[in-house]
Amino acid sequence: MRSSTGLRNVRLVIEYDGSRFHGWQAQKGLRTVQREIESAIRRVTGEQVTLTGASRTDAGVHAAGQVANFRTRSKISVRRLPHAINFYLPEDVAIRSAVVVPDSFHAQYCAVRKTYRYTFVCSYTPRPLERFRAAQVRGTPNLSAMRAAAVYLVGRHDFRAFGSAGGRVKSTTRTIESIRISRRGDRLQIDVTGDGFLYNMVRCLAGTLLRVGLGKISPAEVGRILREGDRKAAGPVAPPQGLCLLSVRTRNAPARAATEP
Amino acid sequence: MRSSTGLRNVRLVIEYDGSRFHGWQAQKGLRTVQREIESAIRRVTGEQVTLTGASRTDAGVHAAGQVANFRTRSKISVRRLPHAINFYLPEDVAIRSAVVVPDSFHAQYCAVRKTYRYTFVCSYTPRPLERFRAAQVRGTPNLSAMRAAAVYLVGRHDFRAFGSAGGRVKSTTRTIESIRISRRGDRLQIDVTGDGFLYNMVRCLAGTLLRVGLGKISPAEVGRILREGDRKAAGPVAPPQGLCLLSVRTRNAPARAATEP
Repeated sequence: MRSSTGLRNVRLVIEYDGSRFHGWQAQKGLRTVQREIESAIRRVTGEQVTLTGASRTDAGVHAAGQVANFRTRSKISVRRLPHAINFYLPEDVAIRSAVVVPDSFHAQYCAVRKTYRYTFVCSYTPRPLERFRAAQVRGTPNLSAMRAAAVYLVGRHDFRAFGSAGGRVKSTTRTIESIRISRRGDRLQIDVTGDGFLYNMVRCLAGTLLRVGLGKISPAEVGRILREGDRKAAGPVAPPQGLCLLSVRTRNAPARAATEP
Repeated sequence: MRSSTGLRNVRLVIEYDGSRFHGWQAQKGLRTVQREIESAIRRVTGEQVTLTGASRTDAGVHAAGQVANFRTRSKISVRRLPHAINFYLPEDVAIRSAVVVPDSFHAQYCAVRKTYRYTFVCSYTPRPLERFRAAQVRGTPNLSAMRAAAVYLVGRHDFRAFGSAGGRVKSTTRTIESIRISRRGDRLQIDVTGDGFLYNMVRCLAGTLLRVGLGKISPAEVGRILREGDRKAAGPVAPPQGLCLLSVRTRNAPARAATEP
């Protein structure tokens, strides 16, 4: 699968610990996930590629299944590519898989569904083992109340109360497919799946749902905030270390691993 | 509860991320958990105390429920003590709780049961989000084989094949109460509960069980190694970051929180 330009389009699945990154997107002089991977690819292929990510995660935010793509003239077997790139990557980021996709594939534009997990740890004392992966809550949130509030949020809505549009799309309307709220020991997990999210939206939803869980606002109040687009009543934005991009579904991606040599 | 010496004996439950510690035990010039907590206690009470831990965890090994005790003349409320000590602790260690216990209580000698968890993450590519908390395995271990091997290990045995005695006790006989092996996603967890463990014993058991899971030795071979005390056939010792001391049960500990003012 090689386009008329002689370039192959490669789709990557990427895991990273966001703690020591200034987010995904390349920024001059800052350590970002995009730049680290582009540097590693250059050492493998000799080319300065541009890596396009499905999601521009913020500083401190993690990913278990970020998706990205880049174009290359390199003839290296795509099966060997993850190992080759990982050899040059630092230990807080790794390529999990690579496949060749049609030339039309673009990780950002072709992303049709994303799942994020926000994790709180409920404890009155600090939790050293959770500090990079969860936000601490001093209290015991009421899950039933949080689930009742989530019902208002699921569906196609204008989410301007919970974040801002950014980049090319000016619309603040998105579809949330599901919100699953679960407790495992003292960990409280909020899994949000949708077709796309505004800037800071998942962290703002998590912060808002937590306020419901702690009895500071009612579930119905969340419905009102959404309906009226009341930005000031929403939030606060929960801290970045609790957020992880679990997976991205894209269209135009091959159903199976590439058939490269 | 104050002894005739005017000293209170305080039992702590402690959580730490072992990644940046040279283990539990105080060592000149090295950053250890014991030293960090003793320094924080000194800042709270003004006293140079000696903290006795139930388990001397190695460098890189974590704890969710280490138990320790120290004696103090301080009149500070024991209910406030965790918060006061945590104020002076770095973010990779925290006191979860404190209670006053009888003068006879000694965290090491009174520990009657400990549970450790060893975690492997099964993946052919590196896993940045698990790197400080699990050892990577390139393969898919057979859980049934591992469980069959564990049957040989449970009970009262001479475990000299799996570790060395250290400190005051010369015997290498210990009782393993249970070994639970479970898989959660690509995480493989081995929970071992026993009355005490030899130096490196849990990591050696984990390394040995993994070899069984990967088909390198049979379950029956583990029985033979144990029976014959064949140190060279056991192991290897699995790396420290996969190990976490989950909990310690002690005798002489009060059934409920202290009734201090």
